[in-house]
Parts: sequence; C-alpha cells; structure tokens
Amino acid sequence: MASYKAPLREIHFVLDDVLNVGSLAQMPAFAEVTPELIGGLVDEAAKLIENQIAPLNAPGDAQGCKFDNGEVKVPDGFADAYKLYWQSGWVGLCNDTEFGGQGLPYTLSKVVDELLCSANVAFALYPGLTVGCFEAILANGSDEQKKTYLPKLGTGEWTGTMCMTEPQAGSDLAAVKTKATPNGDGSYSLEGGKIFITSGQHTMAENIIHFVLARLPDSPPGVKGLSTFVVPKFLVNADGSIGARNPVNCVAIEHKMGIHGSCTTSLQFDNAKGWMVGAPNTGIQNMFVMMNLARILVGMQGLGLCELATQNAIAYAKDRKQGKAFNGGATIIDHPDVRRMLLTMKATVEGARVLAYETGMYVDISHHHPDPAVREEAQDWVELNTPLVKAFCTDSAVDLGSLAVQVYGGHGFIREHGVEQIMRDAKILCLYEGTNGIQAMDLVRRKLMLHGGRVPKRFFAKVRAESTADTPVGFIAKPLREALEDLEKTAAWLQESFKSNPDDAGFGAVDFLRAFSLVYLGFNWLRMAKAATNHADAGFRESKLNTAQFFASRMLPQVHALCANVRTPASALMQLSAEVF
Amino acid sequence: MASYKAPLREIHFVLDDVLNVGSLAQMPAFAEVTPELIGGLVDEAAKLIENQIAPLNAPGDAQGCKFDNGEVKVPDGFADAYKLYWQSGWVGLCNDTEFGGQGLPYTLSKVVDELLCSANVAFALYPGLTVGCFEAILANGSDEQKKTYLPKLGTGEWTGTMCMTEPQAGSDLAAVKTKATPNGDGSYSLEGGKIFITSGQHTMAENIIHFVLARLPDSPPGVKGLSTFVVPKFLVNADGSIGARNPVNCVAIEHKMGIHGSCTTSLQFDNAKGWMVGAPNTGIQNMFVMMNLARILVGMQGLGLCELATQNAIAYAKDRKQGKAFNGGATIIDHPDVRRMLLTMKATVEGARVLAYETGMYVDISHHHPDPAVREEAQDWVELNTPLVKAFCTDSAVDLGSLAVQVYGGHGFIREHGVEQIMRDAKILCLYEGTNGIQAMDLVRRKLMLHGGRVPKRFFAKVRAESTADTPVGFIAKPLREALEDLEKTAAWLQESFKSNPDDAGFGAVDFLRAFSLVYLGFNWLRMAKAATNHADAGFRESKLNTAQFFASRMLPQVHALCANVRTPASALMQLSAEVF
Repeated sequence: MASYKAPLREIHFVLDDVLNVGSLAQMPAFAEVTPELIGGLVDEAAKLIENQIAPLNAPGDAQGCKFDNGEVKVPDGFADAYKLYWQSGWVGLCNDTEFGGQGLPYTLSKVVDELLCSANVAFALYPGLTVGCFEAILANGSDEQKKTYLPKLGTGEWTGTMCMTEPQAGSDLAAVKTKATPNGDGSYSLEGGKIFITSGQHTMAENIIHFVLARLPDSPPGVKGLSTFVVPKFLVNADGSIGARNPVNCVAIEHKMGIHGSCTTSLQFDNAKGWMVGAPNTGIQNMFVMMNLARILVGMQGLGLCELATQNAIAYAKDRKQGKAFNGGATIIDHPDVRRMLLTMKATVEGARVLAYETGMYVDISHHHPDPAVREEAQDWVELNTPLVKAFCTDSAVDLGSLAVQVYGGHGFIREHGVEQIMRDAKILCLYEGTNGIQAMDLVRRKLMLHGGRVPKRFFAKVRAESTADTPVGFIAKPLREALEDLEKTAAWLQESFKSNPDDAGFGAVDFLRAFSLVYLGFNWLRMAKAATNHADAGFRESKLNTAQFFASRMLPQVHALCANVRTPASALMQLSAEVF
Repeated sequence: MASYKAPLREIHFVLDDVLNVGSLAQMPAFAEVTPELIGGLVDEAAKLIENQIAPLNAPGDAQGCKFDNGEVKVPDGFADAYKLYWQSGWVGLCNDTEFGGQGLPYTLSKVVDELLCSANVAFALYPGLTVGCFEAILANGSDEQKKTYLPKLGTGEWTGTMCMTEPQAGSDLAAVKTKATPNGDGSYSLEGGKIFITSGQHTMAENIIHFVLARLPDSPPGVKGLSTFVVPKFLVNADGSIGARNPVNCVAIEHKMGIHGSCTTSLQFDNAKGWMVGAPNTGIQNMFVMMNLARILVGMQGLGLCELATQNAIAYAKDRKQGKAFNGGATIIDHPDVRRMLLTMKATVEGARVLAYETGMYVDISHHHPDPAVREEAQDWVELNTPLVKAFCTDSAVDLGSLAVQVYGGHGFIREHGVEQIMRDAKILCLYEGTNGIQAMDLVRRKLMLHGGRVPKRFFAKVRAESTADTPVGFIAKPLREALEDLEKTAAWLQESFKSNPDDAGFGAVDFLRAFSLVYLGFNWLRMAKAATNHADAGFRESKLNTAQFFASRMLPQVHALCANVRTPASALMQLSAEVF
C-alpha cells in the first residue's frame, strides 16, 4: 500500500522562504493570518489527513462505489471520514464567514487540497465539488438562494455538484439540451439527462445541491442560450428544514479506470424543481466562475498525486536492494537510471508546487487587496496560471505515476503496492474540467491575447528581471534566460500566426503550454535555489541545489525543442483528408 | 469496447514494399515461402484472431483469473480459444518441424504475434511463454529432454513457463535462492519459491512445463552458480503419457493493474522433480537463449497495443462530433490538437512496425542464411535491435494508450470504451523481461561496445547511405542526417565516458535508447516515404507522406535534446546522499 506523509518541511519552505506567504497579512482581510497561523493549520490538517483519510485510499479503490436501485453506496469509512472532515472545518476553510466558512486565505485551502489529494484523491472530490458549487451560488445567486443553500454548503454539511456534461455535450457545451421550463412561480422544471456527474448521488450528506446548466424554452441555440439553475436533491423548506424529494435521480454510475471511491453518476432530471441562478442566458459565464477555481483545484489534485508518487518511489528506492551500483551502493537509489527517474520526479513536483501555491496567492490578492491596480494585476496572473496549473500538474501526475511504477519494477504493477493506483487515478485529471488540450487552447487563444498581450509580457519581464539579477545560481539563471527568449519569440509567433492560420497555433498549443510551464518551473527553481543557498539544513540545501541543477541541465532545455515544434507550420497536415487516416 | 481489425494493408506494405520479405525465400530453409504464402497466412491469422480472440479481451479483463485452493481459473472462453489457436497451428508456426512446428519464418510469427497482442495481450502470454520454453529446451536440452517435452510444447498442446524471479531476485538474478539437489539418478529435487510466473498454473493444457533457474548445492554464489532445469507439472512416463503430479504448486496469484486475463502466479517447489538442461552453472546463458527472443516478443506486445490504441483513437475521432473546427470540420479529427495526437500515434506505430518486423527478418537470416558472414552480420543486428524493439515499442504502448484515452476525452476513462485497458495492460511491458532501464543499459554497456563498436558503426553507415542517396524525400533525409550525426557523436561520447565514469553513461542510457530508436524510425520513415511515392493508392500515398512529414518535422528533432542530455555529465548528481532525497 502506498504510504503518505505530508511533506511539511517542503511546504513550509515554499510558503515562507520562497513565496513569503506572510505578505498576505498586509491585506486587511487577513491581518491576523500570520505565517505561524498558516503553518499551524497546515500541520493540523496534515495530522487529520494522514491518519484518517489516507488509510481509506487503497480500500476505497478496491471496494469502489456500488449502485443499487437508485442509491449509491460509497466505500466503507468514507461517510465517517467526510463527517469528521467537514465538522473539523476543513471544507469551509476559505469560504466566506457569513456562510459557515472560516474566511482563511484561499492559498491555505490549496495547501490543504494538496494534502487531501495526495492522501485520497477520490475522497477529495466530495468536498472539492461542494466548494465549487458554493462559489457559483455565492457569485451569482440571489440573496434568498444564498440564505437557503450557502450556510450548509459553506461548511460542507451539504455537498454540491456541477452538472454540465451530457452524452453529446462534453467539451462542446453549446450542445447542451437539458430544458428548464418556467413554472410561473419563479421556479423552473428541469428535464434532461446529465452524465459524468461527480458526487451526484450518495447518502454522506443530508442534502445534495446541484448546479445545473440548462436551456430556457425561448433561448437562442449554442452557448448563448444556456442558463444556470440550482436544483436541490431535497427541496428546502422556508425554515431551512429538509422538504420533499426532488425528482433528480441517479440512473447509473460509471465503471472507471480509477478514482473508484468517487461516484461518477448519470442523473436524470424528471421535471425536477430548480431556480435560476443569475440572469437568463448567462449560464456559461456563471459556470466559469466555478470552472476557473475548479481547474485550479484539479491542478492541486495533480500536484497531490505527483507528491504521492514521488515520496513512495524515493522510499522504495532507498529500501530495495537489487544488484550492486557502479558507485558501490546496495539499494537501487544508487543506480543511475533510478536516480534519474527520482530527480525527474522531485524536480517536477517541487517546481510545480511553487506554481500552484503562487497561483493560490494571486487568487487571494485578486480578491482582497485594497489597491484595485494590484487586484487587477493579480487577476491577470490567475488567468495566465490557471491553464498551466491545471494541465502541467495533471500531465505530470500521469508521468510521475508511471515513473513510480517503473521505480518499483514488476512490483509496481501489483495492486497491493499502491503505485499503479496513482497512474489510474491520475488520468482523469487530464480530461475533466476541460481536457488538457482545451487548457492549451485557452492559453494560446485567450491568455496570450488578453489585454493586447499584457499578461504574458508581464510574465516575461518578471522572469527576465529575476534571472538577470546578480545571482550566485547562474547555473540555472543562464539556461532560464535562454529558454525565456525562445518562449517569448514563440509567443510572438503564435500571436501573429493565430490571426492568419489558427490551425497552426492549435497544432502547437499543447507543446507551447508545456514549454511555458517549464519556463515557469525554471523561474521557481531559480527562486528555490536562491532561498536554499542560505538554508540552515545542509542536507536540504544540498538536495535543493542538486535538484535545481538537474532541472536546469536536463529539463529546462526541453523548452527549445518544444518551441521549435510550435513554430513549425502544420497547415498542410490539417489538409489531409480524414478518410485516409 | 475497443474494436480490432488487423491493419492488413499496412502489414503487406511493410513486408512487401519496404522490407522485401520475399528475400527470405532466397535461403534454402524457406525456398517455398513466397510472399504470397506469407500474405495468405497473415490474412488467415487475422480472421481467426479478429473473430475468436479479440472478443475475449474486454470480458477477460473484467472477469480476470480466479485462484481457488491451488487451482487457477482463467476467464471464460480462454480455454476453448487456446485450443482452437494451437490446433490451428499458430503456436508452432515457426517452431522446428521435427517437434510439431510448421518451420515457417520467425518473421511471420512476429506478424501474427502483433495481431494476437492487439486483439488480446493477456491471452497472447499463454502461447508466448510456451514458445520461449520450447526454444530454451531446444537450444540446450538433451536428446531425451527434447523427445520428452518438445513435440507437445512445439504445437502448444502443453504450455510452458519461465521461472526466474524470486522476491529478493528481480532484476538481480544473482540473488536467486531456489535449490536443486541431485537425487543420484540424474534427476534433481527443486526447493524454493518463485514469483511473477506467467501461466504458472491453469487447466487449459494437459501439462505445464516449467523452465527453472536454480542453484546446485556446491555452486559458487552469484549468477555463475545458476543452472537451468526442466520441471514438468506432471511427470511424463517413458511412453509419453502423463504420470504423477509433481509437487510444484501455485500458492497465490497476483492482483494487477492490467493483463487480468493472464495468470501471474507464485509457485512453490516442494522437492519437485526436475532435470538439468545444459551444463551445470550455465543457467544464465541458457536462460538468455529464451530471454532475447522473449524480449522481442514483449516488443511485439507493445507494438500490438500501439496499433490497438491508434486504430481506436482514429475511429473515435472520425465519428465523434464536438464543436466546430477552425477548418469547418464537424468531427474532432479536424481539431488540430486531436490531429496532432493521431499523427503522433500513426508515426510511432507505423515506424515501430518496420523496426520490429525487420528485427524478425534478421533473426531468420541469422539462423538460416547459408553464408556464415551474413549470419554473423544478421546476429549483430538482432543484438542491436533487441533492446530497441523491447523498450521503444513498450514505452510507446503506454504513451499511445494514454493518448487514446485523451482523444476519447472523459469517455476514455470509462471502462466500457476499452481504451483505458490499453494503458493498464501496457505498463507491465515496460517492466518484465528486463525493465526498460535495463534494456537501455544493455544498449549502452553491451551493444555499443560489442566487437569493438562494430555494430552501431554498421547501423550509422547504413542510415547514412540511405539518407544521402539522391532522393525525392529530402524533407526527411535532411533531418535524418542531422539526427544521425548527433547520435553518432553521442555514441562516441558514451563509448569513452563509460570507461572513465559508468554513472555518466548510466544516467543517460534511457534518453540514448530513445534517441537511437527515433533515428531508427527516421530511417524507417525514409524508406516508407520512398516506397509510398509510387504507391497506386493515392489516399495511402498521401497519408504516408504526410505522416512522414510529421515525423520528420516534429518527432525526429527530439533526438537533439535527448543527445544533449546524454552528453551532460551526471556524476555530481550521483554523489548526492540518498538520505537527503
């Protein structure tokens, strides 16, 4: 079974020494949130998660969810653990205090998300979607809707879902067919089928609140005719008590490659009663309030699995004796190829953690900074970073899961060792909340172009400033500058070529996102190397500097090959007839 | 459910137009083996495999093998299908006619292996190990042993195993502990436990013949003290009839990530009766007779899964409507990122097929050519190609399995669509018969050095000759020459650095193997592009030339980044203490 210990030293290093999480306390909203408070809460979350949630990961995978006659049974132990988790305040950690939350920084909640997703990513989806649903109603709901649903969603006592996908409408939401017909009393009757609905049916919570994308009878076709609705599993009486069962029923659950402990449901809305959230035909915008934060959350899931893969592979490699290494070592960590794999994993997960936490800090700043200009800039960073966090962390989770299996050798393929589960759990992360191809298109089509290209320009300037400064870590500053130049040139190529031939840009989008992410990680490794230079712990210092060296010499240079690919026109390949494939 | 149609047009193109399989008939052993005969047999195999074996793939995965009280139950349908398969002559296709085989070219058997592994890789392991066991006894067994075991192993009526691994002895066979004590009558008593034994127990065949690595009481420690033994499940009477049950028992089966239809057993030898095969303490050499061909077979498993992933992804992408592409297309094959994925898959599997089949032809030539110099050169190619076929085809199977899931989007994660099974089945291929890290070390430590570096030198000269010839396909010849130069320089660097610092070489081995494989695929795509230029079918021609273009411009250039990595010294990283990881 994979074991899990929260990487607390690493987390504290990133928060305190690299990102200066204490700076959040300069904003009035978080005046009392000292680094000590954050550190203490992380340690406390770690204890609960390691002891209560992580042990359910392998059994939950083996047992899975069961569907019987409309009802879903989650794996043994999940219900008690979920109750403990929300009652301890972790679901509502960064939710508004007005609605049951703790009002702590979003950054902190992302750290806790990482821990929870390492421990048990299937379990993490229950609180994860709940927070998403909370945010969507908070952003666009009426006062009455907020009063009705948010207090119990905000703590996690009730859970939430996000009902978008239909069989014919996955990446393409324009094809959504579910209908919402006005009842004349302010409510609507929803009719239609939704698939792939995470946490759509279970009995872990007294009520489930569905946030549903549907179409009004007189709405235009396509995405411009979609609206959002809140549809509770049980209607809520005026006094807040639970009322009648609403006809939204689970008709099946999916049998999946992984995340077996998370129920993935098909829901049938048979004239279920719902209320519109926000204005008519603004459904896509309303959904995206939830979607952007959901994408960052999926990135945290990826980060969590990267960490789980890495720490288990390292532990196994330190323990497993097999042959004698060239350097005389008796355990496989001294075999050069095993060490190469482990350093790849370390360089990836530690670099990605800075990207993910920094994105969390930008979210906090974009919401709470008193200066609108600072808020606006922070929002730019959130926009830019979201596809990077989502796609890079999740692609890496599949890669690192596969590397962990490889480090374990044949034993890695055996279920009881627990690392093959990481690979199986990870793949969905590249698919849901917008496939990673869609993230790449978001980066190329939207984020590169936003405000006349202001956003990437800011990023390039920031990295350049950091990497040209007088620095004792030239071994990474130099290749970072070279990679940055190539990336900048490639971004300009994309900004131009997209206008004349979007297929060229689309063809290179995934490679571009990876190149961009590697430059971002280079920036992170530069900052980590600087911070580590003065670290008191000699072993930690040595490990950080060596891993930075590995990243600088072996991973960062990949940027050039990726950029060359992006700048290679692909239009001819797009003309190949589909029939001859 | 994934569907499977044998890619017959592609196979015939490679055999006839690219590799000239008809040249095998110039050797007396295959004087009657015309391209028509080979083609006809491939078509016949395809029919049987598509109709009888492929439909068992998904149900076999879902049902798996069951262990009950020492006995293993394989999935429903496997026993009948196996009987049909061996009785139709497919197990013994290239086995010696003296022992039940058909004496046809090994090349043909590799083509059939590809088909069988696409259709059902778990099923393919039953005949696969049987042929390996046959070959091992054929190479070193006594006349009596051959007479006793080979006629029924040669047809596949009995199945075979390869018993090497023990809990403490995986990659490191020096640690094998199973003991063989002489009984004084020419037989031995074997005592010990073996794990990960494919097809170790089942009732599909009347008898199972185990080929076992064990240690004589007075043998030296390490690999030099290992010998090989034949240990039948049932002793065989002098008249060939089945005798007493030998105490080799299955004590457990493994629960695995994939290949659920293949039983992976733990076997306990409780003074089981066996007979030594070959001379004492030559066990490793005897095992390697089987091991080299087993590695090529694993490569075919990888190739088969690459094909299955690719053809299903293409079919899905042609059918799935989702959004509107820039070029106006309504199905997702017209989205540039989907097309990029499909072309990556096509370029990989079609290029790898030429590598794999060509290796098969070298095996035939090395065995049957009348001229010893030609045989020797062919054996050089087999030595060089084996790690490439094994590692590249299997790494690609994982990558292409993952890409297939990505093309399917969220649906790919659902078991009923069948593509997630490809990813799960594929990962073991990177681990067994020598992990892909070990393949890379075999390439760097042995194959680069063999006969003073004669083998890679021959390869470089051959690719250079082909790529500098006057050619209408300069679009690939040029990048191929550039990649070749880089590879050659890197090989020279490795040949030198290995002497002074083997850790440097070891650290870059996996990247080097991939670079080498990509150059080999470049060579294949060059030959395919030339052959396709005059192909009668315009669609086929267009598809081949476009895919070659894709490979030349987007995959082949990866060689430079990989080679740069290899030539970066890593010794400092090897000095990092394991404790600080």
